[in-house]
Amino acid sequence: MNNVNQAILEIRQILGERLSTAQIVREHHGKDQTWNPGQPPDAVAYALSTEEVQTIVQICARHKAPIIPFGTGTSLEGHFTAPHGGICIDVSGMNQILEVNSEDLDCRVQAGVTRKQLNTYLRDKGLFFPIDPGADASLGGMTATRASGTNAVRYGTMRENVMGVTAVLANGEIVRMGTRARKSSAGYDLTRLMVGSEGTLGVITEVGIKLYGIPESIRAGVCAFPTVEACCNTAIQVIQMGIPIARIELVDAEHIIAINAYSKLTMVVQPTLFVEFHGTDAATHEQANMFADIASEFGAGPIEWATQEEDRAKLWQARHDAFWATKAIKPGKEESIATDVCVPISRLAECVVETQKDLEQNNIYGPIIGHVGDGNFHVVLFCDRSDAAEVKRVKAVYERLIKRALAMGGTCTGEHGIGSGKREYLALEHGNGLDVMRSIKAALDPLNIMNPGKNAAP
Amino acid sequence: MNNVNQAILEIRQILGERLSTAQIVREHHGKDQTWNPGQPPDAVAYALSTEEVQTIVQICARHKAPIIPFGTGTSLEGHFTAPHGGICIDVSGMNQILEVNSEDLDCRVQAGVTRKQLNTYLRDKGLFFPIDPGADASLGGMTATRASGTNAVRYGTMRENVMGVTAVLANGEIVRMGTRARKSSAGYDLTRLMVGSEGTLGVITEVGIKLYGIPESIRAGVCAFPTVEACCNTAIQVIQMGIPIARIELVDAEHIIAINAYSKLTMVVQPTLFVEFHGTDAATHEQANMFADIASEFGAGPIEWATQEEDRAKLWQARHDAFWATKAIKPGKEESIATDVCVPISRLAECVVETQKDLEQNNIYGPIIGHVGDGNFHVVLFCDRSDAAEVKRVKAVYERLIKRALAMGGTCTGEHGIGSGKREYLALEHGNGLDVMRSIKAALDPLNIMNPGKNAAP
Repeated sequence: MNNVNQAILEIRQILGERLSTAQIVREHHGKDQTWNPGQPPDAVAYALSTEEVQTIVQICARHKAPIIPFGTGTSLEGHFTAPHGGICIDVSGMNQILEVNSEDLDCRVQAGVTRKQLNTYLRDKGLFFPIDPGADASLGGMTATRASGTNAVRYGTMRENVMGVTAVLANGEIVRMGTRARKSSAGYDLTRLMVGSEGTLGVITEVGIKLYGIPESIRAGVCAFPTVEACCNTAIQVIQMGIPIARIELVDAEHIIAINAYSKLTMVVQPTLFVEFHGTDAATHEQANMFADIASEFGAGPIEWATQEEDRAKLWQARHDAFWATKAIKPGKEESIATDVCVPISRLAECVVETQKDLEQNNIYGPIIGHVGDGNFHVVLFCDRSDAAEVKRVKAVYERLIKRALAMGGTCTGEHGIGSGKREYLALEHGNGLDVMRSIKAALDPLNIMNPGKNAAP
Repeated sequence: MNNVNQAILEIRQILGERLSTAQIVREHHGKDQTWNPGQPPDAVAYALSTEEVQTIVQICARHKAPIIPFGTGTSLEGHFTAPHGGICIDVSGMNQILEVNSEDLDCRVQAGVTRKQLNTYLRDKGLFFPIDPGADASLGGMTATRASGTNAVRYGTMRENVMGVTAVLANGEIVRMGTRARKSSAGYDLTRLMVGSEGTLGVITEVGIKLYGIPESIRAGVCAFPTVEACCNTAIQVIQMGIPIARIELVDAEHIIAINAYSKLTMVVQPTLFVEFHGTDAATHEQANMFADIASEFGAGPIEWATQEEDRAKLWQARHDAFWATKAIKPGKEESIATDVCVPISRLAECVVETQKDLEQNNIYGPIIGHVGDGNFHVVLFCDRSDAAEVKRVKAVYERLIKRALAMGGTCTGEHGIGSGKREYLALEHGNGLDVMRSIKAALDPLNIMNPGKNAAP
């Protein structure tokens, strides 16, 4: 039997007012932006150091109380709900940038540091951290969900960019995983095990990550195409030709309508690619020209280039606003599922087109946006939850989408994670691999106190 | 109690003559090229399919007989010795290239396929697999040791390039890990757990890997410097400036002497960088010029460029022959330790120079060669094992080298792995992280039949 109340009493003795059981605080920490059901924790503990996290974990372990780590609350699969109650550990106050090693292009931060905070801090040093999931997420949360986003096609995901992790495990031990070396063959890759573990193997308190020099030249552009298929085929060819494109984002016509309304723009209402090139001036010129050649082969309109920083910022802000823009355009259908399948790039066009047909046939509003250089795209499925028939249709489309991606050799989630929302698909994707995950989980957290009910955790 | 003899009888019933207990076969499968002690297995089973590996593992599990996977036998840390006896599973006959997906830049191979075999097969398709540890290793072995080599600075290591693994685990189950998607947030990263596990978590039977288009232009060059420090500082600046160099290899003067003798060349006897650039013609030109500017700042001599394929092949053959060249030059000191520490690049020059001083002070022949773009270098420590005092000095230098690298935030092994040779340093590097590794090992292999005595395996 767990004894959350006793755990709360003991944690309060240490944190004082930094432990909250207020309804509004608990609710804020128990519900994400999607239609995943909200379940508030019994209390929220605002930790300020790895050692405090350790103490909280030790108390929770003693009382078998569930622990739910929380960064900025921007994840999309019910990662931080509390289906079994317990203590939410909010690390947003752990926002210190611990060290920046400019010469080595790496840094170490506390888990609550957000990517925008880090990039603001780095700007004067000529460095940046490229992983950009849209939201101003915490680095701890991005590590836990193996986040990626628009720059992943060139710079990789959190999988490739996390060098090390400090975490408090279920047994209360602080473990520092990884080194500052760029590569290592020393033992099992514990760092990569924590990346994507979604709080089920431990609470991440510090993260070591790779940085990059701000490119000498950044060239961004927007270009409309006759069809979504033409966008996908352009992306496929860019990747196959090895052009080191930094971003290549598909935004479908539905999204353009929404963005035009939301961001007061006048983009052509057609499927569009947002692209960006990084490098020397000569290199970005050459790459941009190569892209233009491919795009025109697939019937693209003129490319609108943005070379000034403020124009680029505006361009990408519009792209990042897409989710909110579509939400704004569909009053009464605020409940949404942000899907994120990822397939081998040769199957991308086919997967997107089949999915669009399925949406049409079922009369569902599902604008598509995608990190198409990775074969990853989002259908944002909007739904009026009071309409039971629509809910049923949306769920069926969702399931077919995931099965379509898996059948093509892809994954049910390219970047959002499993959380509580995709657990049935985890089994479908991994088969008996899920048993292996569960063995690891049981070995490292026999009491199942670390974020139970998420990812591979029972 | 294990019963290897009974396991041998049962495996023979299935494999017939493909199970060998011949002395010479066992010895060949129980000793690597270094001074790590050889320990032959009780028998060698030549498996031809994942299902055969499964049957062998099931038999061994029943009789608690140790299992030692074997690819080409080119690893350098006693990975495939049999300190507790048992059955060596030789997968070199599993050499089928199962699928090449040119459009997606990936392929799937059986574990025994070697990197040269794969690249020969791929050439006509305009593709290549970049990871190049020097030896013509098997892809299964390279996965198991998290190998890297000369191209890692641009293309990453096996960590970044393995997309999926099929393995037979200790419980006899075949588990297919990973998908063909370029990224995924679905569950724990089992693929990355197998990469670098050195046969202690399962027998790898198939590997899915990333491929790359053969660059339009490849420009390689050789350039002598006044000091090793100047070489390192050039490498540091190249990396910090973000030049996407494909290879940047330090070869010290001792090595040049040996290579000149072994490969009948007339290179200037000075610390030298071997470099290579990949890209479009314009890009490699620009990168080469940027490199030349940096090199000349650090006092480099003229750069000798090799643009023809045969000249490049000769250049890199000389680099790859370095290990054998130094062996040839030191008769009576054939026993060597191929060290491979890796440090943050800002500490590289300091680490190399301090190590050279230590070698000098202790009168040890230890030529240095390095993948300096990664901060990774090899001191090949030669030693006359009949000279007890020299053995002692060599071991002390070795230990100081590793402690120096760890103190600088580095790792005891950048690419060779732990095997049986570096187990004490695994503990030193990971602290209580080793307990976590051991928990995982115990969970997945409670009988400890998978390559016992290596890496984190008891």
